Amino acid sequence: MVASAGRLLGLGVGPGDPELITVKALRLLRAAPVVAYFVARGKTGNAFSIIEAHLDAAQQRLALVYPVTTETLAPPLCYETVIADFYDAAAAQVAAHLDAGRDVAVICEGDPFFYGSYMYLHDRLAERYEAEVVPGVCSMLGGAAMLGVPLVYRNQSLSILSGVLPEAELERRLADSDAAVIMKLGRNFEKVRRVLDRLGLSHRALYIERATMARQRIVPIDAVDPMSSPYFSLLLVPGEKWRK
Amino acid sequence: MVASAGRLLGLGVGPGDPELITVKALRLLRAAPVVAYFVARGKTGNAFSIIEAHLDAAQQRLALVYPVTTETLAPPLCYETVIADFYDAAAAQVAAHLDAGRDVAVICEGDPFFYGSYMYLHDRLAERYEAEVVPGVCSMLGGAAMLGVPLVYRNQSLSILSGVLPEAELERRLADSDAAVIMKLGRNFEKVRRVLDRLGLSHRALYIERATMARQRIVPIDAVDPMSSPYFSLLLVPGEKWRK
Repeated sequence: MVASAGRLLGLGVGPGDPELITVKALRLLRAAPVVAYFVARGKTGNAFSIIEAHLDAAQQRLALVYPVTTETLAPPLCYETVIADFYDAAAAQVAAHLDAGRDVAVICEGDPFFYGSYMYLHDRLAERYEAEVVPGVCSMLGGAAMLGVPLVYRNQSLSILSGVLPEAELERRLADSDAAVIMKLGRNFEKVRRVLDRLGLSHRALYIERATMARQRIVPIDAVDPMSSPYFSLLLVPGEKWRK
Repeated sequence: MVASAGRLLGLGVGPGDPELITVKALRLLRAAPVVAYFVARGKTGNAFSIIEAHLDAAQQRLALVYPVTTETLAPPLCYETVIADFYDAAAAQVAAHLDAGRDVAVICEGDPFFYGSYMYLHDRLAERYEAEVVPGVCSMLGGAAMLGVPLVYRNQSLSILSGVLPEAELERRLADSDAAVIMKLGRNFEKVRRVLDRLGLSHRALYIERATMARQRIVPIDAVDPMSSPYFSLLLVPGEKWRK
């Protein structure tokens, strides 16, 4: 650790509603000289939109712009290599500020350690610099709150699954879950829907897009257009109610 | 719904650090005429301790005191019946305030819909009264942040399990998880530890007690005294790092 270096801060800013940031993340955000965030090319970025109103003009913005928008690249390009090089370069940009003694707050939609890009910076930098992570409200809990449905009771097992998983694996894991959350739907919606139907779980499944965000949308699972389901959509299969 | 009735508010107050409450939960908490919370007999209650400093004298406190401290009762008593009766009575107490037109904020450690007692009030009251749930930072994400370890990467599957599960079921579920969180350790620690050892997962498992609370304690898994592991302890088996 370099004593005079800045601190790396991974700040969870919650699932979308700007009021769902924690008091601690807000305090550290306001005090940070540099605010970094991951963003797709040409977009504002969800995490940045959530906290933009809290920044003042003196705070430096550092946009870390993803080089690709899909994991399927034309050969000879390989997603894993392209994205790893990008995270290396992003870590170097953040490190330059830390070396200059400036704290860098990396803002993260949801929670920093729950499927977030911040983890790739943390893995590259936390051994060299002082790092602090502030946990956040994750999207699945934002979704359950908006749907008004308890997610998991008592000693039930909860499985958190990616819609990207192969169909057979999804089916095996869902069949063995008391309660489940399926993230990363997008183009995987139809596959997930087939699996839920085969398992007789469709009547228990609840769908929500952009939970807690301004453009939140709740639709019955039968009314979802599989071609237009966004990446920020979730399916919840809540645990069976426990009540005597 | 009774138009003149008060609103039922389920407020997640986070895992323990009072600063890990959201801006929204804090706003609604301060405005609530009645603040209700579950608590063990003779205790202050974790959730209440987290928010006590934010209350003013005019806000009414409603302690919902659990009738038992263990799930193992001497016959003819049966935990399920005793606790269901208790939740019925607690719901009636809350309903009396709602009927009188007073909003009731039920404060919940972590998140209201993630293994919380609030769910039993919600299931009894949300059809009759307007209810709003504010999600919170759950203990497992508080734990990961304090341990400084990313919990789950990319398309890994995460299993959230109770230490109460039978040994064989725990073993089967853990063997099939990319990443896992085991809650409700307490007296189940030795059993969980045996399972982790058999699966060769002990070197990946991280233990934390009372994550983000004033009395937080992080100990290597080999140094845990199984007889004194508190209920609010967690084991995390983080996903393998994804890095090219």
